[in-house]
Amino acid sequence: MTHINAHVETNRLERGKRALAEIDGEAGRKVIAALADIAPDFADYILEFPFGDIYCRPGLDLRSREIATIAALAAMGNAQPQLKVHIEAGLNVGLSRQEITEILIQMAVYAGFPAALNGLFAAKEVFAARNAAI
Amino acid sequence: MTHINAHVETNRLERGKRALAEIDGEAGRKVIAALADIAPDFADYILEFPFGDIYCRPGLDLRSREIATIAALAAMGNAQPQLKVHIEAGLNVGLSRQEITEILIQMAVYAGFPAALNGLFAAKEVFAARNAAI
Amino acid sequence: MTHINAHVETNRLERGKRALAEIDGEAGRKVIAALADIAPDFADYILEFPFGDIYCRPGLDLRSREIATIAALAAMGNAQPQLKVHIEAGLNVGLSRQEITEILIQMAVYAGFPAALNGLFAAKEVFAARNAAI
Amino acid sequence: MTHINAHVETNRLERGKRALAEIDGEAGRKVIAALADIAPDFADYILEFPFGDIYCRPGLDLRSREIATIAALAAMGNAQPQLKVHIEAGLNVGLSRQEITEILIQMAVYAGFPAALNGLFAAKEVFAARNAAI
Amino acid sequence: MTHINAHVETNRLERGKRALAEIDGEAGRKVIAALADIAPDFADYILEFPFGDIYCRPGLDLRSREIATIAALAAMGNAQPQLKVHIEAGLNVGLSRQEITEILIQMAVYAGFPAALNGLFAAKEVFAARNAAI
Amino acid sequence: MTHINAHVETNRLERGKRALAEIDGEAGRKVIAALADIAPDFADYILEFPFGDIYCRPGLDLRSREIATIAALAAMGNAQPQLKVHIEAGLNVGLSRQEITEILIQMAVYAGFPAALNGLFAAKEVFAARNAAI
Repeated sequence: MTHINAHVETNRLERGKRALAEIDGEAGRKVIAALADIAPDFADYILEFPFGDIYCRPGLDLRSREIATIAALAAMGNAQPQLKVHIEAGLNVGLSRQEITEILIQMAVYAGFPAALNGLFAAKEVFAARNAAI
Repeated sequence: MTHINAHVETNRLERGKRALAEIDGEAGRKVIAALADIAPDFADYILEFPFGDIYCRPGLDLRSREIATIAALAAMGNAQPQLKVHIEAGLNVGLSRQEITEILIQMAVYAGFPAALNGLFAAKEVFAARNAAI
Repeated sequence: MTHINAHVETNRLERGKRALAEIDGEAGRKVIAALADIAPDFADYILEFPFGDIYCRPGLDLRSREIATIAALAAMGNAQPQLKVHIEAGLNVGLSRQEITEILIQMAVYAGFPAALNGLFAAKEVFAARNAAI
Repeated sequence: MTHINAHVETNRLERGKRALAEIDGEAGRKVIAALADIAPDFADYILEFPFGDIYCRPGLDLRSREIATIAALAAMGNAQPQLKVHIEAGLNVGLSRQEITEILIQMAVYAGFPAALNGLFAAKEVFAARNAAI
Repeated sequence: MTHINAHVETNRLERGKRALAEIDGEAGRKVIAALADIAPDFADYILEFPFGDIYCRPGLDLRSREIATIAALAAMGNAQPQLKVHIEAGLNVGLSRQEITEILIQMAVYAGFPAALNGLFAAKEVFAARNAAI
Repeated sequence: MTHINAHVETNRLERGKRALAEIDGEAGRKVIAALADIAPDFADYILEFPFGDIYCRPGLDLRSREIATIAALAAMGNAQPQLKVHIEAGLNVGLSRQEITEILIQMAVYAGFPAALNGLFAAKEVFAARNAAI
């Protein structure tokens, strides 16, 4: 039974690993790696639940999912490292720089101008790093 | 000069009124009406800035804009009346009930299960009111 | 020693009671009363620390202190009952209805339009209750 | 394969159902039931991840886990229905009314007096409902 | 029509530029400049709406407006750069260092001791930079 | 009268100093010292209210109090320096590294995965600094 369990759980985990690689790319792999010596189980939960379960659900395309994530993280305003990862992810799944900028500008309406500003400055950093990497 | 000012501001205001009617519909009109005896100027700002300026910007379609707004309001979790207005708005601009439900489920990852739950219960109310209105 | 302690603590407590009565008035007394059967010690802490210590400090007048409190509670957006108490308090210490309305409108800039809207609707309720009481 | 998958997932789901019943009791079952017609998959995620995965982890006892949850929900201050469910849950896993009251009082230090007050009033409602049910 | 539009919008924009210069000073100009290569339109919105519209409204003096802004930003606790800009702004419009310190201390009551602490440390940095600039 | 007042307040202050030293240790003393040139009165309030009043209350043990504080600060996600101080404090009053890690993992459920991640990275820093200090 343990074997079957392990096998199936591996499937959920494996599906999450593939989704993380596709969506978050290198930035996501760094987060997982950084958890290795403090909470490796939590790295597995990240792979299994957000990526293996949620991002793999039908009913909403990945582009739309990243719009939702970027908006939420910018509005909450207390998760700047994760916002940067998902600005990267947005670019990875097909959002343009302009579209991401529009999402962040719009957050001024719902979460205030400081939230929008801090989101835009996060995007500026991500875009600059991408330019430098070319 | 006042006339020109008034004329141009009317344009911005008028553009916002049309956008509000298209996006938020009846729910938006009620919010504007409720401000009449406390802060009518703020009603104008709502029409001018979020609707006249932001929602009219090119670069991101209305469907994507409502995904961002629903996600942000559900994640912040302290603006339940506005979340309901924008679940309505999402339906008005072409999001399906399933897509809205997916956005709200996804918020469990970024803002916690209670935020997702309270968002889903808001959607349940809006969907039920729509069913009853048919 | 207990007697001296009690005597001095009573002074701090008494100072807080007078400040609460002056600032929050009837609304404040109701909050204190509502704590009697769940956490009477917490009622004392409210009287001693915010009212006995903070609001009695020199260096900032009560009118300015209520501007700060109304702004903070409206911006956080998760303490509607306390926001109403402090809109009352603002009126008690000399803020006009217009000034309170301006503070709440301004919160749209820093905490988003929903926070401002929910603050304005709280003010509308408080102002209407005052009108009814005349 | 589907069968094995279903079987194993059922195990995770079943473990979560048992944990939910033990921890949240009737209040938890109502939440799950309320999701049936809007997002039944999300009901499964609640059972699987928070209850099947997290609350079943060794390394921290249930009493300590409920202290953490009550504190977090009171401090965030935007999830009052879930706070009430977990005040119930705290009582179910062995916290006394006094201990819960102490946790909520302490939140005044970290999240402000309004957060503590609103938490205490939630506890007052839960305690009163328990008294009435006896 | 475009010309008139541009002319009138310039007026709103110009009014905002003057208000920003008076209130936020050099710190505000840096924010506007930093937006040039990521979202220049958003720089215009900042000038037009918060500064051209809101801060220019009669009904509440600038000193009171900065009390509200400092309190709100310290209470939300997720906009440290903007809090520093507005501590500067507070000094620019006539608040004393002591008054600003009192506002921040008071936030311990409504948003918790960490919010007050982080606000006070922001003020400490701003005050030190002013001392160094003399 | 001043003397008696001073004497009793000193007692409250002294009790708080002892509690701060026991609970927060060196990290707490640094916070108090950093306030000396900006708001020494606020340093006294920290000693008197959270430490002299709240942490000294019977009815909840220090270990449980630190569970509540770590959970609350991680969930709010906007007080990273204070979270680190209280991860230290948790170790000081008897929580194991594993228990602290479990509290932080659990916050994913109530405040989202980013809040849990940022909490875990704070713990990683604190644990590493402790290892280096040995």
